[in-house]
Amino acid sequence: MSNEKISTQPYKGTRDFYPEDMKIRNWFFGVIRESLERASFEEYNAPMLESLELYIAKSGEELAKEQTYNFTDRGGRMLAIRPEMTPSVARMVAAKAGELNYPLKWYSIPNMYRYERPQRGRLREFWQLNVDIFGCDGFEADFDVIESAIEMLRGFGADETMFRVHINNRRFFNDVIAAIVGTDTEGARRVSKVIDRKGKVTREAYEKDMAELGVDADKLAKIDALYTMNVREATALCPDSVGSGELLSLFDLLEKTGLDKFCVFDFGIVRGLDYYTGTVFEVFDEAPENNRAMFGGGRYDNLVGLFVKNAKISGVGYGMGDVTLENFLVTHNLVPNLYASEKKVLITRFDDVPMEHYVSLAASLRAGGTTATVYLGAKKFGKQIDFAVKEHFSHVVICGASELEAGVVKVKDLETREESEIAMDKLSAFFE
Amino acid sequence: MSNEKISTQPYKGTRDFYPEDMKIRNWFFGVIRESLERASFEEYNAPMLESLELYIAKSGEELAKEQTYNFTDRGGRMLAIRPEMTPSVARMVAAKAGELNYPLKWYSIPNMYRYERPQRGRLREFWQLNVDIFGCDGFEADFDVIESAIEMLRGFGADETMFRVHINNRRFFNDVIAAIVGTDTEGARRVSKVIDRKGKVTREAYEKDMAELGVDADKLAKIDALYTMNVREATALCPDSVGSGELLSLFDLLEKTGLDKFCVFDFGIVRGLDYYTGTVFEVFDEAPENNRAMFGGGRYDNLVGLFVKNAKISGVGYGMGDVTLENFLVTHNLVPNLYASEKKVLITRFDDVPMEHYVSLAASLRAGGTTATVYLGAKKFGKQIDFAVKEHFSHVVICGASELEAGVVKVKDLETREESEIAMDKLSAFFE
Repeated sequence: MSNEKISTQPYKGTRDFYPEDMKIRNWFFGVIRESLERASFEEYNAPMLESLELYIAKSGEELAKEQTYNFTDRGGRMLAIRPEMTPSVARMVAAKAGELNYPLKWYSIPNMYRYERPQRGRLREFWQLNVDIFGCDGFEADFDVIESAIEMLRGFGADETMFRVHINNRRFFNDVIAAIVGTDTEGARRVSKVIDRKGKVTREAYEKDMAELGVDADKLAKIDALYTMNVREATALCPDSVGSGELLSLFDLLEKTGLDKFCVFDFGIVRGLDYYTGTVFEVFDEAPENNRAMFGGGRYDNLVGLFVKNAKISGVGYGMGDVTLENFLVTHNLVPNLYASEKKVLITRFDDVPMEHYVSLAASLRAGGTTATVYLGAKKFGKQIDFAVKEHFSHVVICGASELEAGVVKVKDLETREESEIAMDKLSAFFE
Repeated sequence: MSNEKISTQPYKGTRDFYPEDMKIRNWFFGVIRESLERASFEEYNAPMLESLELYIAKSGEELAKEQTYNFTDRGGRMLAIRPEMTPSVARMVAAKAGELNYPLKWYSIPNMYRYERPQRGRLREFWQLNVDIFGCDGFEADFDVIESAIEMLRGFGADETMFRVHINNRRFFNDVIAAIVGTDTEGARRVSKVIDRKGKVTREAYEKDMAELGVDADKLAKIDALYTMNVREATALCPDSVGSGELLSLFDLLEKTGLDKFCVFDFGIVRGLDYYTGTVFEVFDEAPENNRAMFGGGRYDNLVGLFVKNAKISGVGYGMGDVTLENFLVTHNLVPNLYASEKKVLITRFDDVPMEHYVSLAASLRAGGTTATVYLGAKKFGKQIDFAVKEHFSHVVICGASELEAGVVKVKDLETREESEIAMDKLSAFFE
């Protein structure tokens, strides 16, 4: 062992999870799991290391190499630590494409790494919930994943004042743009790219780009109007579009099931141009100080085809980072005191009582389902109580030589400060 | 996207977890968590990537570089994917050494990577349970971690016919060897190294190595005898050793608490020479076809000292791999049918009933705590039932146009094949 001292800090952009941090994370993930499993989503996982070519195939070589931690193993294989889950799950579905029972309702909460500059909401190591339905082309799968996102956030106690799902449709988007600008497919595609970047440039630059593509003031006004329309007004502009039909079916079902109060049509949701093929959505934080997209997703049709020729297994889903969720829950004061409702018993020790007596008390409490431990240190009674308070124990059990002789113990409630004397053989029942 | 097809196989030595695999793993980890948390162990976690120097400091440069996936980031930092958790947790304890409340009872079940040839029980990616108590020098912490290992295995339904904890003490080991071979500390140390390798070489080679260090036949016989002794016979050979006292206290408490039936003194447990400083133990699978050490641990005193000068925070703990545990549970037939007891409802669909009706039925079941989903595919009724059976649904709900009109649904139990007709507004209560 070296004598030089090593830094105790975690690697840049990563986090240590001490027990109090882990408790919150386990609560996050527990609420998510419960909500999704109740809707019959099943959890899966894949290795942390994947072949680099998986990401190159999806995102291109430059982006894949720049955004991942990648290296070559001794066998010459180019590997990457996964920066996202979609390629892994597409690979898994492709590997068993012929034997799986569709539609699949799958989710995962893997840890992953992205090589980027750490900033608020963006870390190098993070966990990301991935929810997907594979093998259902109908709008009911789009509804089901949107419903799952709403129910998950409601599971945390969030209501319609706190978040909203903004929904658009890529087929509709392409069709309505083509209808307005009246160009061929490639021309409409170039206009779409400008629209996709709209939020990232000045109005002036946007108008200039549009003008260069032949979009005059009249057409521009028509496009602008789309951003203020509801779903019926917008789809009326191109009623024959398959995308219009999908949007109307989706919003109709949202209305009839009462979920429309959580949702809004938003022409501004595009989510890039090469990946999604139908419904697209983003979930916004409604807090005025934090009003922005937290996470999103949509329908994609071609991913499994990367692996299996002529395979046509469609998917619809979303991904949500743990840091984003934590920011949202903290902003809306939705993280409860996780220690408040727990029963957790510290059995204090005195030197003149044999250790096996304390061990047996702890064992009987645990057998009754109560969390309990004997104090393992060598400190005096007062320090043992301090330890219990700092470590969020709800009760201490006190048993000195006189209690042992009398066959009783004292139980002290650390919140109310009440003390009770209880027969030793009734102790476990006292906590049940 | 490329047109060349990519392999669908996971990277060598790693595993995909499809939902049925994940279900077993979640059950494993759930039983472990419940058992440890009931004994007041708290979960922590650390990043998957750590500074390579962390492992070099513990294991030396050659071993650290050979056994880890390591690489240099763009900032010139040498990183490794963690091959074990101990350096990370030592770093975390060191970082807050002055503010933590000792003793700490901590556990973690991280995924990690070791660069080795995949073989039975050894994969490149695995999960490892780590259980440690920091900051308690007394034997009661040694007892507490051994108790936690026993109770965890009992939590899976294992009993004393299936596993045994083999216990030794490194202080006792060193002292009794020195007492027998009668050499200076360095001489005893060299003899110890030969003994540590005993199980890996032939008896002939072992005797030759011992003879070279001056251990004659008489001394060798005394050492051989230690392997057949119980803890009282063995410790009687060097009654003044601190290690003897620790062993006797530990076994005394195991006997008085009835845990001795799970434990045995075993002089053959050494666990390397540079790391452990007191109690050492290994948990053996008692199945004749699989009789070998599954996992182990012990007391170590110096780890936190790698990071903080003059720090003296002792630890005692163990690590257990997920593959090892799975082999043990499968060998002893301890993995239950995890689907058998689950209530999981598929709501089948007919084209002439509006979707919102099915969605509302599912929502009311979920609100009552029952797992439910509407069938999302486009297949006929018989295929929907096939889907339900293959996907382990326990019940299907059937509601066609006539049931909808009558305000009822049919519920079919897929195990008993019984069918009941239930009023729509009583459906949720039926499953509670």
